Amino acid sequence: MQTDTVSMRHAVAIAAIPAGDIPETARQMARFSLFDWLVCGRAGASEPVAGIVRDMIEEEGGKPVAGVFGTALRVPPRAAALANGTISHALDYDDTHFAHVGHLSVGVYPAALAVGEAVGAPASDIVDAFLLGAEAACRLGMVLGRGHYLKGFHQTATAGAFGATVAAGRLYGLTDEEMRNALSLVATRASGLKSQFGTMGKPFNAGIAASNGVEAAALARRGFVSADDGFAAPQGFHPTHSDDAPVLSAWDHMPPARFVFEEIQYKLHACCHGTHAMIEALLAAKRTRRISPNAVEEIDLTVNPRWLRVCDIKKPRTGLEAKFSYAVLAGMVMNDIATGADDSYTEAVCVDPAVNAIARRVVVEGDEAISDTDTIARIRLADGETVETRHDLSDRLEPEALERGLRAKATTLLGEETADRLWQAVASVGDRSAHDLGALLRS
Amino acid sequence: MQTDTVSMRHAVAIAAIPAGDIPETARQMARFSLFDWLVCGRAGASEPVAGIVRDMIEEEGGKPVAGVFGTALRVPPRAAALANGTISHALDYDDTHFAHVGHLSVGVYPAALAVGEAVGAPASDIVDAFLLGAEAACRLGMVLGRGHYLKGFHQTATAGAFGATVAAGRLYGLTDEEMRNALSLVATRASGLKSQFGTMGKPFNAGIAASNGVEAAALARRGFVSADDGFAAPQGFHPTHSDDAPVLSAWDHMPPARFVFEEIQYKLHACCHGTHAMIEALLAAKRTRRISPNAVEEIDLTVNPRWLRVCDIKKPRTGLEAKFSYAVLAGMVMNDIATGADDSYTEAVCVDPAVNAIARRVVVEGDEAISDTDTIARIRLADGETVETRHDLSDRLEPEALERGLRAKATTLLGEETADRLWQAVASVGDRSAHDLGALLRS
Repeated sequence: MQTDTVSMRHAVAIAAIPAGDIPETARQMARFSLFDWLVCGRAGASEPVAGIVRDMIEEEGGKPVAGVFGTALRVPPRAAALANGTISHALDYDDTHFAHVGHLSVGVYPAALAVGEAVGAPASDIVDAFLLGAEAACRLGMVLGRGHYLKGFHQTATAGAFGATVAAGRLYGLTDEEMRNALSLVATRASGLKSQFGTMGKPFNAGIAASNGVEAAALARRGFVSADDGFAAPQGFHPTHSDDAPVLSAWDHMPPARFVFEEIQYKLHACCHGTHAMIEALLAAKRTRRISPNAVEEIDLTVNPRWLRVCDIKKPRTGLEAKFSYAVLAGMVMNDIATGADDSYTEAVCVDPAVNAIARRVVVEGDEAISDTDTIARIRLADGETVETRHDLSDRLEPEALERGLRAKATTLLGEETADRLWQAVASVGDRSAHDLGALLRS
Repeated sequence: MQTDTVSMRHAVAIAAIPAGDIPETARQMARFSLFDWLVCGRAGASEPVAGIVRDMIEEEGGKPVAGVFGTALRVPPRAAALANGTISHALDYDDTHFAHVGHLSVGVYPAALAVGEAVGAPASDIVDAFLLGAEAACRLGMVLGRGHYLKGFHQTATAGAFGATVAAGRLYGLTDEEMRNALSLVATRASGLKSQFGTMGKPFNAGIAASNGVEAAALARRGFVSADDGFAAPQGFHPTHSDDAPVLSAWDHMPPARFVFEEIQYKLHACCHGTHAMIEALLAAKRTRRISPNAVEEIDLTVNPRWLRVCDIKKPRTGLEAKFSYAVLAGMVMNDIATGADDSYTEAVCVDPAVNAIARRVVVEGDEAISDTDTIARIRLADGETVETRHDLSDRLEPEALERGLRAKATTLLGEETADRLWQAVASVGDRSAHDLGALLRS
């Protein structure tokens, strides 16, 4: 396999980027991720897996350092990271990065916040540490490449553990040499398999990434000596966890000049990913002009043909089927029914007369010329006019649109009061302490 | 890859073997391992890596449940397992199993003891839980086979985590279904790379095995649901961590009829493994009859030729070189210098006149006909007589010889008083509580 002599050095360098060199655009995305992560964690706090992991760490107890979603108890940082990673991924509704192939906030933010609370960092340092950790996770995830993922490893957990180490290590103030030891140590600890998908093991994978990162950094700052290059050297993490050569182009255009993290995607709708471009396109049309549901004659959708076998159920009967139905989802959007809330997807919505008045007028057509992140919608109105609207998920949303979408999702999940309060807290993160952030996990 | 539909079921079955079905020969070896593990942990408690891991878990604090080598503090079970696994492997002087390819006590005993203390088990239940956990680790290690090890994975850590799960889960009283969930969960958590060898990461690998086992069992007993078969199913632990087919013959002759654990080997001498057969052969001759060093004319050794390039340094100058010198080691044995104590290996011993009087009379000859675990020694005496003695490491030592060797090692490492006290405690384990055992870690 091709020799990789650069990844460890670059990961250490990312961890040491001065705060003054971080561009505001990247920081803004890190704040969006913080908000969305808090929302997902708050919303997931009553899931069964959340209760199980919380119960274990509550029984362990320990120095009351770091907050945990869904309890007033504070616990040591490793335990908080394990619980918060698991809990925030319980709904699988958190952010995703397609180049990294995985979820970033759920592995990295719990590590950054727990260590930030341990050292009493300003909240803005936690955001920076997350950003650099997430960037390192993205880049290392790209180095590991699709071969790692296809072999069965869950990048959220594996590349995520390295990112969590960067975030935790930065907040602990590790030297470059200590950071190298921390990253080489987490190489023997990082794990996580896709075969857990569909079970509680999936969210747990995010928790172990976060906890492993805190642990490796906590040991390295005490002088732990590990392999010189635990990631890329012979029998290091990469050669043992992939049959493919390292993708070293992952290191092109390094931060702070470019943050690939900025391509992070948010799940704004609690339904099949294949329908999200349509939903965004219809919402954009509704923002441009008022469209009464009664005025709609027909909605013609053009999508990539692969979705026709995935999410074009014409007459769904259950809430789950509704999530895979362009027709019913279009009816929900045109009738202002929240697509961000899991409890919007019911048997009742499938037979709702207003929803169905739209649903039966939806015509879906496949076109190979359109990418699978793109959708064109032509809304023919009773007065003869046609409103054409289009959305490609790979286009970055403007910050205003993203804010709107994330706050709408938060409102449907947590109610308007909590959503607004979390938003204001994150918007004013520069004035906050780590402890203020930790308190947001429970109230 | 060949389908493995049996490993998960067999591992669950091993965990459920009734205490009454366990043969006393296997239990006796588990007690020898307990003694040797306590000795290695006590002796390793002042190593730098021990202090680092202990400092981290002491700062975390928590419910005072389980003892830790080298401190009076008691900590939660996951933390105790992490620390004790690491500390007891710090000297790399603990037991080894060649079929499993790894160390057993350091991964499995810390899990058994920590959970045993948590649930207040009798000490004899801890020994049984260790034995079954070690047996499961051996068998799963054999299923994973050499391909797993050669790829770069450290079986002590990986197969060890499954064994630790069996031990911890048995003491928590898991049902078969909970045990299956625990084993399938640890599959996404098990990790450990050989590229850490030569660093603190190596002993840490034993700690993570133990801690992962406790964690998986603690979560499963609370209802955690993981993959159906996290070990062998597609993208499970085995298919993602080896390119070779499962070695299903590992399940032949199942326990309780046969315990492959009984083939466990102990390191009784703190020097190169290639010299151990010679040392045992010379010790056996000395037990048979008194041989004065002055009466030795020549010692002719016959060994496998592979060792000639490894441990036949004729005139070693340093303590480290002495560990690789048949000549000086023979001189040490004939002069009753303890080969079990690391501090016997000095520059001084290399130039000791009595040692050298023997060393210069040692003649080493390679012979392909002799296996690399075997050594023949012919001791020619001044009166013309020749004493022939032989030892093969693959021959099991009689319990009396093993006791003698383990107690001698303990005495050289810890002093006679402590060695005797630990021996008496282990010999009367049937009358002890988990708490009694935990107290042996520090006093």
